[in-house]
Amino acid sequence: MVSTMAASGRLTVAGLGPGALEQITPAAAAALQAATDVVGYLPYVERARELLARAGLGCEGGPAVAWHASDNRVELERARQALELAAGGRQVVVVSSGDPGVFAMASAVFEAMESADADPAWQALDIQVLPGITAMLAAAARAGAPLGHDFCCINLSDNLKPWAVIERRVRLAAEADFAMAFYNPRSHSRPQGFVRLLELLRACCEPGRLMVFARAVSTPQEALRVCTLAEALPEMADMRTVVLVGNSATRRVGRWTYTPRHYGMDGSDSSGSRP
Amino acid sequence: MVSTMAASGRLTVAGLGPGALEQITPAAAAALQAATDVVGYLPYVERARELLARAGLGCEGGPAVAWHASDNRVELERARQALELAAGGRQVVVVSSGDPGVFAMASAVFEAMESADADPAWQALDIQVLPGITAMLAAAARAGAPLGHDFCCINLSDNLKPWAVIERRVRLAAEADFAMAFYNPRSHSRPQGFVRLLELLRACCEPGRLMVFARAVSTPQEALRVCTLAEALPEMADMRTVVLVGNSATRRVGRWTYTPRHYGMDGSDSSGSRP
Repeated sequence: MVSTMAASGRLTVAGLGPGALEQITPAAAAALQAATDVVGYLPYVERARELLARAGLGCEGGPAVAWHASDNRVELERARQALELAAGGRQVVVVSSGDPGVFAMASAVFEAMESADADPAWQALDIQVLPGITAMLAAAARAGAPLGHDFCCINLSDNLKPWAVIERRVRLAAEADFAMAFYNPRSHSRPQGFVRLLELLRACCEPGRLMVFARAVSTPQEALRVCTLAEALPEMADMRTVVLVGNSATRRVGRWTYTPRHYGMDGSDSSGSRP
Repeated sequence: MVSTMAASGRLTVAGLGPGALEQITPAAAAALQAATDVVGYLPYVERARELLARAGLGCEGGPAVAWHASDNRVELERARQALELAAGGRQVVVVSSGDPGVFAMASAVFEAMESADADPAWQALDIQVLPGITAMLAAAARAGAPLGHDFCCINLSDNLKPWAVIERRVRLAAEADFAMAFYNPRSHSRPQGFVRLLELLRACCEPGRLMVFARAVSTPQEALRVCTLAEALPEMADMRTVVLVGNSATRRVGRWTYTPRHYGMDGSDSSGSRP
């Protein structure tokens, strides 16, 4: 089939942040307001629709928007659909929760460009990725500043990599004394991964290590729990939870959990952090 | 001196994102619009002033705002000033660039609460931290999705930790095959750190490893450069640059740089990434 890419098509991959509409950047909102097509996992498409409805656009008044909501687990299909629509001249926004570049749709779009059935013209499309507030930053802000020093970010889904890779990364991250953020800690289909993670952390870190379980931050279902590694239970996490693990210096002051900016030297204030 | 905390005082630590006003969340903008006092490093206070001026507030029309701009390198003093103002009943916003919890002001505020001259009443203040788009997410979005798989985030300023800690973390991160984001790579006062980092990376990673030098993303000074580790030069980074290093699977498609979601297994699409 001959590619019929229209010059005016555009694909924007936009992050909608952790949940609340007031955490969506004006840049992402503007992209949605200019969209002819919104593509994404159903709950994120609903969030985009809510945003446009609040702005008086999209549903009535503004230009007609075609909504393409799909199920979970079809990221590549969704990415191909979005690329095809943009190649056909549409103004397409692919919506992700959080940030599209952190375990979300941006990589899927670029993978689709390289897939066997890709149209080579897709690579020349007008594409932009708009960042969003990713879940670990929203979670950290609610808890205080547990990611205030060097940290790492690990997707616990072993649908995407062998468990042995996760285990090796967690061991090395603990040895490096990174704070850690874990995405997708637990699902119905794989309840054992997080059990194994807790065992692994207990083998690598002291029992008093601080952990934050942050569920659905910024939504009505928000729940935040701070405890020590010794107190942590598998049931504290589900797929809507981000789990943060402090480094060895992470501490509590009042109701806050934070990691000091300095490490391995005296605690005097000095230059070098971004103020 | 007796603490005279007024019930209505509030301290908000807000992230202003990477630079562009359209990357500031509505939540952060609303906090600024309610502020009586804005505290921060001069260029970030200026950005807040610009945001309020654009909204027709702060400078004329809205409530009078007191602007407290300070120099770099005085994070703890700034944090104390903000806590004192809030304890005195003011509506205070401390502004950070990016996200306040990533190498920025949130940790400094909690450190100030624990400092020798802290007022114990500060711990009971109404405090909130509002997340922002941190520099690595803005940089990654411009490049494609280089942080689309597990990654780590390291502050290269050795004013905050001994160089030996940085070196150990980079070695372990390379062994874990994390993608890496480096903040504060280079300053006039310590030009050698980034030279040493490149030597270290060359000892740990293959020459073709992809790197992204992202300077002042979303501002008029934005500059993006993608190259291999073999091609990287120290002069490509300054203090306004975030440096991203891909993992061993990071690749280019067209003008984009991305890290696939899968690792160490066949590349078929499957569930588990946040869609």
